[in-house]
Amino acid sequence: MTTSAEQEGKRRGRRPAGADTKNALIEAARAVFIEQGYEGATVRAIAKRAGVDPAMVNHWFGGKEGLFGQSVLQLPVDPTVFANEISEGDVNTLGERIVRRFLTIWDSSGGGQFSALVRSVASHEMAVHGLRDIFLKQIFMRVAARTGSDNGMFRATLVASQLIGMGMVRYVTKFEPLASNDIDTMVAAVGPTIQRYFTGDIG
Amino acid sequence: MTTSAEQEGKRRGRRPAGADTKNALIEAARAVFIEQGYEGATVRAIAKRAGVDPAMVNHWFGGKEGLFGQSVLQLPVDPTVFANEISEGDVNTLGERIVRRFLTIWDSSGGGQFSALVRSVASHEMAVHGLRDIFLKQIFMRVAARTGSDNGMFRATLVASQLIGMGMVRYVTKFEPLASNDIDTMVAAVGPTIQRYFTGDIG
Repeated sequence: MTTSAEQEGKRRGRRPAGADTKNALIEAARAVFIEQGYEGATVRAIAKRAGVDPAMVNHWFGGKEGLFGQSVLQLPVDPTVFANEISEGDVNTLGERIVRRFLTIWDSSGGGQFSALVRSVASHEMAVHGLRDIFLKQIFMRVAARTGSDNGMFRATLVASQLIGMGMVRYVTKFEPLASNDIDTMVAAVGPTIQRYFTGDIG
Repeated sequence: MTTSAEQEGKRRGRRPAGADTKNALIEAARAVFIEQGYEGATVRAIAKRAGVDPAMVNHWFGGKEGLFGQSVLQLPVDPTVFANEISEGDVNTLGERIVRRFLTIWDSSGGGQFSALVRSVASHEMAVHGLRDIFLKQIFMRVAARTGSDNGMFRATLVASQLIGMGMVRYVTKFEPLASNDIDTMVAAVGPTIQRYFTGDIG
């Protein structure tokens, strides 16, 4: 007798580089990051625990940072995809596009997920290290390559401060009217801040 | 035989409206807020538990919000004092003065205290309600009375977003160089953002 679960298992067995592999890597990554910490965990160890070729980590997640973002931090979007989306297009509309994309992503995933990220970052050194690497290596480097401004790292951290704070007030403390204002209103108010931090005079 | 602690006790016994009363109120407030929640707790109940006249709450803390800020949230400064400091002086330098005062206060109290506040706000509905009342009633109302801009509440929440985010990056995630830059550098970069949110064109 063959159960439907076994049949499902056989079908899934034929797709070694598919969704099963991705999920196996995410589960293995959670375990290894918790055991070894962010710095101590290696792509090799995670792939070994998942029983998967290490090359699959780069294929699915672009490296250790991306795997951390999707396993431990549970980001609602791949940071590499986010960075590519916003770094394409006119540099002079970068601020508006970042605010719009940031709010579109997190509005649709619900405020609870942002609150969970903040709790994680405020409580665990590991989450801070991972978030920093994701932010710097996967997002900032791509965007900075487009703007070419001086003081690049300071500008990047200023951008982070406004985006994180906007998320805190919209999704965590839910101060009105910022928490409920539509995205166009938010883009008009906060877009120029992000634009100035990237390309304007910051002193 | 009289110990120095007893002598100290006697000296303090002659000042019923002094530091002992204040500490008794803070301890009673922590207990009552935790038992009754932020909305349920009353000044009367807290004063009764401390064995103190309710008028002392207004004398020492300016009301329930101030008592919550100093007991549960453990803010490093009385929000009323902060609001009075920044709302005096030229409206056109409001942004600079707020950034300078915010960083001076939290830099000297250490990043750990800001992290604790963020954890509290991200985890407990009570902390969010208290913070909102403190921010709106004790800080924003005083400052808004000076600027007279339209969309006052939206402007106030935008200001909150940038200040909270600056605190997150400087004290919690500690992204460099923002985490270590001197206060003058931060004032030049972030002051204009706060100024625009209070008095500029926000769309």
